Amino acid sequence: MKAYALLGGPKAEWPEDIVEIFKSAKNQHDLLVGVDRGSILLQELGFIPDLAIGDFDSLKTQELAKVEHLVKDVRYSNPIKDYTDSEQMLEVVFDEYRVSSLMILGATGGRMDHLLLNLMMLLNPKFKPYAEKVEFLDKQNLIKYYASGKHFIPYQPYKYFGLGWFPEIKELTIRGARYDIANYNCDYPKVFSSNEFLPRSEGFELSFSSSGLVCLILARDIDRYYHIVNKN
Amino acid sequence: MKAYALLGGPKAEWPEDIVEIFKSAKNQHDLLVGVDRGSILLQELGFIPDLAIGDFDSLKTQELAKVEHLVKDVRYSNPIKDYTDSEQMLEVVFDEYRVSSLMILGATGGRMDHLLLNLMMLLNPKFKPYAEKVEFLDKQNLIKYYASGKHFIPYQPYKYFGLGWFPEIKELTIRGARYDIANYNCDYPKVFSSNEFLPRSEGFELSFSSSGLVCLILARDIDRYYHIVNKN
Repeated sequence: MKAYALLGGPKAEWPEDIVEIFKSAKNQHDLLVGVDRGSILLQELGFIPDLAIGDFDSLKTQELAKVEHLVKDVRYSNPIKDYTDSEQMLEVVFDEYRVSSLMILGATGGRMDHLLLNLMMLLNPKFKPYAEKVEFLDKQNLIKYYASGKHFIPYQPYKYFGLGWFPEIKELTIRGARYDIANYNCDYPKVFSSNEFLPRSEGFELSFSSSGLVCLILARDIDRYYHIVNKN
Repeated sequence: MKAYALLGGPKAEWPEDIVEIFKSAKNQHDLLVGVDRGSILLQELGFIPDLAIGDFDSLKTQELAKVEHLVKDVRYSNPIKDYTDSEQMLEVVFDEYRVSSLMILGATGGRMDHLLLNLMMLLNPKFKPYAEKVEFLDKQNLIKYYASGKHFIPYQPYKYFGLGWFPEIKELTIRGARYDIANYNCDYPKVFSSNEFLPRSEGFELSFSSSGLVCLILARDIDRYYHIVNKN
């Protein structure tokens, strides 16, 4: 069983096919998770979460009552706490529900303290074993994590990719991409952006060692963005 | 002299008063910088950049000709390069123009490889000495950087703040905020979100030591977000 979680980030950043994503997940009997306001947003999209997690402080009393009435498994987090809602979600879906993977939506846009917290939480040694099973998806980006070793990154329909390492990297080698690199070392967190899959390639090879993780950001431009620009 | 730079990120994330920001900068004879597509976007807002930097690969021939005609100082970066456009901008404005501070706009939204690169570039030892002079601003967030030491963070009109450290932190102490903390240590990059200024406080005290930087994210919710939600 996989898990699909919706957080409370702005709808403008959601993937355009978000309804199809949750519909397909439901048909596969995967776990639908609403985190805080994401619990209401999922219902607005037509889906009742299997699991709702949060302190729910952004919900009106009536909205929370609806969540409590409809959702089988509701977990209340404490606003003064060691774990955030997202971190508690990682713990519940992997340790209790034993899901094989987790796709997180609604994590981008809006408040940057939330975004950065979510992107960095997998570096916590408690959560790092789950990192390679977690993805973040929005309308322009798919973010994945890799631990030390050799990886083949299969082609995916994104024009660009970037790689960031937290906190350091040794012997980074990329082979088979537009900009290859061999045995690169860097002792502070850094991001390489705007690399590309080669035309008609099946993917590229990535290898490195790190005490932390490498974050792979698959990204595309959006035509709509240029339309907005050109309107002016 | 201060510098104000516009990058190519989507307009939807710009601060609402972006025209007033650049107008005030121009009146103060501060340096207006357009980075790649930001050079055209600044002109669309009614401002001719003093400095334009980029490989300009996102510009049409006609747009680039306009930049070359109107902008006094145009710097061409190489797409296959050690420095990105943003990094070259840091070097030019601080080393050559000797500006006292730099506010970066248009860095958020859109492609996450760009966003993360921009947020992490100040960790490069070459740029770290400038870190406390650099700010990122968008419609919901103001991001600043602090190096090891004691700092007083004055109240600013943002409801929330988060703190992230890259790559590690020692003896983190926050005094005078909603959630205080004393002598906290963490040996991997992490973000604390959703802290708050105390009501009627003048600010809070922050102290820590780190081989890298602390990133302070001042953040607010936006009503419009909830309007979008409630429309459904």
